[in-house]
Amino acid sequence: MFSKAISVLITGVNRGLGLEMVRQMVEIQKPPPRLLFACCRDPDGATHLQALKKEHPDIIKIIHLDAADPTSIKQAAAQVGSILGTSGLNLIINNAAVAVHQSLFDSTPEDMHRSFNTNTIGPMLVIQEFIPFLRAAAKDCGSPGLSCCKAAVINISTFCSSNELTKESYKEFAVMPYRVSKAALNMLSVCASLELQKHEILCAMLHPGWVRTDMGGKDGELSADESVEGMLHVMSSMTEQHCGTLQDWRGQTVPW
Amino acid sequence: MFSKAISVLITGVNRGLGLEMVRQMVEIQKPPPRLLFACCRDPDGATHLQALKKEHPDIIKIIHLDAADPTSIKQAAAQVGSILGTSGLNLIINNAAVAVHQSLFDSTPEDMHRSFNTNTIGPMLVIQEFIPFLRAAAKDCGSPGLSCCKAAVINISTFCSSNELTKESYKEFAVMPYRVSKAALNMLSVCASLELQKHEILCAMLHPGWVRTDMGGKDGELSADESVEGMLHVMSSMTEQHCGTLQDWRGQTVPW
Ligand SMILES: NC(=O)c1ccc[n+]([C@@H]2O[C@H](COP(=O)([O-])OP(=O)(O)OC[C@H]3O[C@@H](n4cnc5c(N)ncnc54)[C@H](OP(=O)(O)O)[C@@H]3O)[C@@H](O)[C@H]2O)c1
Ligand SMILES: NC(=O)c1ccc[n+]([C@@H]2O[C@H](COP(=O)([O-])OP(=O)(O)OC[C@H]3O[C@@H](n4cnc5c(N)ncnc54)[C@H](OP(=O)(O)O)[C@@H]3O)[C@@H](O)[C@H]2O)c1
Repeated sequence: MFSKAISVLITGVNRGLGLEMVRQMVEIQKPPPRLLFACCRDPDGATHLQALKKEHPDIIKIIHLDAADPTSIKQAAAQVGSILGTSGLNLIINNAAVAVHQSLFDSTPEDMHRSFNTNTIGPMLVIQEFIPFLRAAAKDCGSPGLSCCKAAVINISTFCSSNELTKESYKEFAVMPYRVSKAALNMLSVCASLELQKHEILCAMLHPGWVRTDMGGKDGELSADESVEGMLHVMSSMTEQHCGTLQDWRGQTVPW
Repeated sequence: MFSKAISVLITGVNRGLGLEMVRQMVEIQKPPPRLLFACCRDPDGATHLQALKKEHPDIIKIIHLDAADPTSIKQAAAQVGSILGTSGLNLIINNAAVAVHQSLFDSTPEDMHRSFNTNTIGPMLVIQEFIPFLRAAAKDCGSPGLSCCKAAVINISTFCSSNELTKESYKEFAVMPYRVSKAALNMLSVCASLELQKHEILCAMLHPGWVRTDMGGKDGELSADESVEGMLHVMSSMTEQHCGTLQDWRGQTVPW
């Protein structure tokens, strides 16, 4: 687990893997985060998250952030900045995503733009708007090297983004617009990793496994609990050699 | 070169590589295409193309097609269908594309949607609208196996779409929205290759090399002539084993 009390921001946390990340970070992680910006698009409807916040009011700050809306991302950055003051933000996890279940011939331009907007452009704008806080954290750190305790962006991708693995999985999960948006996210992340490395910020991707959430469905191979435990472990051991890579919840490289 | 007089459709042919493909197909290839649907978004302004058409009026049919406009793609399909009658279309080359020269931090959502719309969604809609003609060609062919002489979609991608090669090339060509849209095109093509293979239609990608065109600039390593000669050669030798692959103009695999 993370060796110090870091400040973290996670998007899409009112259910699924995002919610479980918040839970494990505040309930299991030692030390827990100093501050956890729990972002979702409907804070009032996020009942599980509100309950967690009641238990950990000093750590969890619920922030309105709609990953499909540039204005909302800008406003979220302003709000987070006013809470952080002069201290930095160590870790951003771009987790919010939509899965559009269509094959090539059923997909419309709207399906394509919608998934691209949330799954690819959303993370791009989050990086653009929150970079000052990541840079502040990198500067504050003082020690060399790159890590999620210092300053990092982790984009949640998927094995469905892998050209190599698509042949085996397309029959079961066509999800063409989703695959395309996540392959696009991979390239965005590779570019981001090169640009962020100059500022001593790590950028990498994670595949959570096939998980039993609303998105993964009931046949998934892992519980959200197992997946998040694995991902937190992988994140905590990332270094500069992981910049621009896609690893799964066990730390194994997913082929492009 | 192609072993028989095929019918071909190419997008974005008023200049650059598209125009050179048309030229080599009608002037050098033996036998030349039976029909060549030369698609561009401004037929009246396409002076070089109009000149080629004057020399080869029975082969070249100039078609209005704006790859960024779904209605125009639909109308182009209707027009091509009325010229083809009951005969099929053997080969589609999705060549039209825009390169948006921005780094991660300069890119706006509009830059991202614009390149995605032309470079990724455009080829998707072309496949959706023209599939009946490709299927007719596959059915007419009679012989087993897959080839560009039977029925095929070739999507023009780029080495800039390669996650593995981005590290070396990002400094010289950031073109982040372009890279993202072409990585997205690769995934779309991999999905399409799986769906089209069921109908005996080949789908693959080609990287033309770094070519001296308006897009490639004057420092490119190849002339359009050399690049197109190579790509036509590679296309003519493609078989079912190339479904879903990305090869360069020499027939070498580009890593994802
Ligand atoms: N589950 C799997 O098997 C699996 C496999 C591979 C990768 N992943 C990836 O893992 C991540 C989490 O997936 P999950 O399984 O937890 O999915 P999920 O159960 O469907 O939850 C998705 C979360 O994203 C949020 N979200 C969607 N659009 C949003 C937007 N525009 N703004 C803000 N939040 C938004 C949702 O909020 P609302 O409640 O407001 O919709 C929800 O909290 C995703 O990136 C997904 O692609 C999952
Ligand atoms: N040149 C290189 O070094 C290089 C390297 C790798 C890959 N490529 C790829 O090779 C292909 C051809 O590139 P190029 O070098 O010939 O580029 P180019 O010289 O810029 O020509 C681009 C062509 O695409 C057309 N086009 C753009 N948007 C269109 C739209 N919405 N609808 C219809 N046509 C449209 C342009 O038409 P207008 O005149 O109307 O704009 C033009 O004919 C592209 O897919 C490109 O990504 C090129």
